[in-house]
Amino acid sequence: MEGRYFIEPIGKIKANEEGFLIEIDAAYRAALTNLDQFSHALIFWWGHQNDRADLRQTTMVDLPYARGTRAGVFACRSQIRPNPIAVTTCALLHVDVANGIVVVPWIDAFDGTPLIDIKPFMPTSDRVRDFHVAPWAKDWPEWMEDAGLYFQEHAVDFGD
Amino acid sequence: MEGRYFIEPIGKIKANEEGFLIEIDAAYRAALTNLDQFSHALIFWWGHQNDRADLRQTTMVDLPYARGTRAGVFACRSQIRPNPIAVTTCALLHVDVANGIVVVPWIDAFDGTPLIDIKPFMPTSDRVRDFHVAPWAKDWPEWMEDAGLYFQEHAVDFGD
Repeated sequence: MEGRYFIEPIGKIKANEEGFLIEIDAAYRAALTNLDQFSHALIFWWGHQNDRADLRQTTMVDLPYARGTRAGVFACRSQIRPNPIAVTTCALLHVDVANGIVVVPWIDAFDGTPLIDIKPFMPTSDRVRDFHVAPWAKDWPEWMEDAGLYFQEHAVDFGD
Repeated sequence: MEGRYFIEPIGKIKANEEGFLIEIDAAYRAALTNLDQFSHALIFWWGHQNDRADLRQTTMVDLPYARGTRAGVFACRSQIRPNPIAVTTCALLHVDVANGIVVVPWIDAFDGTPLIDIKPFMPTSDRVRDFHVAPWAKDWPEWMEDAGLYFQEHAVDFGD
């Protein structure tokens, strides 16, 4: 194995009764310039609660939303993986460059989770027209916008 | 600043005259189990050629495809960023769990780039119906499938 690389946290995710905010450290705030020209962004965070040697060696997991089904960690979105990088595509409600604040409607991260990157949502990179998914997800919605209500109405268990 | 986190390379990306392959190290191959049930995956790689202290402190860049326009690195997909994580959504042509090989039609990484994660493309997480983008990208296609031909026909300059 060649060398490791290091991730520098660049801010924190706030997810509490006050809402969902991305807070960017002062040194990186200028990097938000013009992000408000996009409707959505990919928010990258480090799953620090799963940054444990045993979990980072785990290759298969049980899927909480598909009882009795196991899958490789590269075939599901579990936070248990060799490098606990998580990415959440979020609508951008407000971008405050000077104060380093990005307001989003919701994000599936714990309060205080380290932020590691932000990229604008680009259809040419991210938006797939023709797709198929594993049998356990075949009845799930085709759009991110419809996911929250569907998971709520069908009580889909994400185990967290 | 709180502590740093470590990225462990889990394989390599091959991008040469033989094609585009993701090679997964032996310890992580089982994690590919059932990935072949998906049409697409997000391939995460480390932009090791841009892993330099000065580039990781750079917050603004010139956009090669939009002459005279500068943007924050969080408002574009430049490989210059505080943590040089890159993600490419790829169609999956073949998944070989035993040998740790994933064949894709194309990926915008150099030959030998370190692989750091793979996630299945999930519409509920990744597929945004209603979006808008910055003015410089407003005429670009709405779908990843249409991007390659468009960029070729319009000779869009990504500076690499």
